[in-house]
Amino acid sequence: MTRDHLKETERTRLRRKRQRGSHQLATIHAILDATPMSYVGYLVNGEPRVTPTIHWRRGDHIYWHGSRASAALIAATEGSVCVTAAVLDGLVLGRSGLHHSANYRSVMVFGKPAEVQNRNEKLGRLEAFINSLFPKRWRSLRPLTHRELDATTVLSLPINEASAKTRSGGPNDPEADVSHPVWAGTVPVRLVLDSPLADPRLPEGVEKLRHGRCFGRHWRW
Amino acid sequence: MTRDHLKETERTRLRRKRQRGSHQLATIHAILDATPMSYVGYLVNGEPRVTPTIHWRRGDHIYWHGSRASAALIAATEGSVCVTAAVLDGLVLGRSGLHHSANYRSVMVFGKPAEVQNRNEKLGRLEAFINSLFPKRWRSLRPLTHRELDATTVLSLPINEASAKTRSGGPNDPEADVSHPVWAGTVPVRLVLDSPLADPRLPEGVEKLRHGRCFGRHWRW
Repeated sequence: MTRDHLKETERTRLRRKRQRGSHQLATIHAILDATPMSYVGYLVNGEPRVTPTIHWRRGDHIYWHGSRASAALIAATEGSVCVTAAVLDGLVLGRSGLHHSANYRSVMVFGKPAEVQNRNEKLGRLEAFINSLFPKRWRSLRPLTHRELDATTVLSLPINEASAKTRSGGPNDPEADVSHPVWAGTVPVRLVLDSPLADPRLPEGVEKLRHGRCFGRHWRW
Repeated sequence: MTRDHLKETERTRLRRKRQRGSHQLATIHAILDATPMSYVGYLVNGEPRVTPTIHWRRGDHIYWHGSRASAALIAATEGSVCVTAAVLDGLVLGRSGLHHSANYRSVMVFGKPAEVQNRNEKLGRLEAFINSLFPKRWRSLRPLTHRELDATTVLSLPINEASAKTRSGGPNDPEADVSHPVWAGTVPVRLVLDSPLADPRLPEGVEKLRHGRCFGRHWRW
C-alpha cells in the first residue's frame, strides 16, 4: 500500500472493464462520502446476507452502528465482510438494448470489522457521525447516558482492501448504430435533501436547522 | 404462502423492531419498483461479496443481467443469494444522539437465481426491462443480434422468500427530551431524474425523450 493507492488483492482485483476501476484512496473516500448508505454483506449459517446501513467515514476507516442486540452487527463481527456503497448518477440510453447502461460510482471494502470497545472512543465516533451530517450539532444534543452508550455497538472497518468502480458519460454505441433514428443520451439521477420538517412537538423559539452535509454536498435552508 | 403474504422463513423472520417489518407482497413489490438499484450478496471462496446492480421486476420475479463473462453473475448462480434493495427517504434528527435515525424502505429477497436459457424468453425479459423504465422504447431500438443476446446473461429470482422493512415519520424522542432546546424533525431525501442530455452524436430530427418511469414515479420532460 502506498499513500495514494491501495494494493490490489485477490478480492479487489479488477477483472472486466478495468478502465472503470480504481484503487486510488481519494476516489474511494470521495464515493464513501457521497452517500450515507452502504450495504454490508456477511454470513449467516454460511449463506450471504446483505443489510443496508448508514455508514460514515473518518480518515481511513468506515464506521456503522446499531443496537447491541442487532443480529446483523453481531454476525458482521464473526468473519470477513464486504461493504458496498454505490451512487447512481444516471441512466444511459443507447440505440440498442445492450448499449443501455447506468452511470454510477461504487466502492467495495473488504475486511474484518472490529467493535469500538472504549467508551470515550465510541462517544467520539458517534459525535463525528452526527457532525459529519449536521456540523456542530452534537454539542447541542441531550448528552447520551452510559446506559444508552452501552446499548449501542459501533463497528469500524479499515479501508485497506478496497476498490472503486465508476461509469460516466453517454452511450458507447458503435459508429454504425449512430444513425439509427432513436433518442440516445443520458438521464441524470440525483439525490436531493428537501427542506427540513420540524417535529410537531418542537417548542416555540428553537433555532431552525439551517444546514447539512450529505451526498458530498453542503445544503442550506 | 398465501396470495397476499409470503410465509416467514428462518431467513426472513423479523427479529428486532418487528413493527417495521412486513411479508406483504404488495409492499415488497412496491419497494422493488421504487429503486432500480439492488445489491446482490453471494459467495466467492466462501466469503461474502456484494455487487450493486440494476434490477427489474415482472410479476413475482426479479431479474438482473450482465455479460456472460461476468464473475459476479456466474458466482451468483452457484448458490443462494440475498438481493437487497433500499430507498432512503429521510434523515431523522432527534434530541439525543441515539434518537437520530433514517427513514427508509428496504427489501431482502433470498433464493437461488436461475439463468434465463430460452432465447425468446431472454429477449422478452430485456424488452420488459427497457420498457419498464422508458415505456414502448424497445420497439424503436436497433434490434439485438443473436451474438449480442448470446453474450448476455439474464438471471431470474422468484420473490418467494422475502421481507420488507420500513421506517417513516419523525423522531421517537421520549417525552422527557422534548423540551431540550435543539431542533428535531426530518430532512426528506429524494431521488430525482433531471432533464435528459442528448448524445452529441444524435442526428437532427430525432424525437426527444419525453417520459420515463423510475423510483415508482412517472417523469415527463
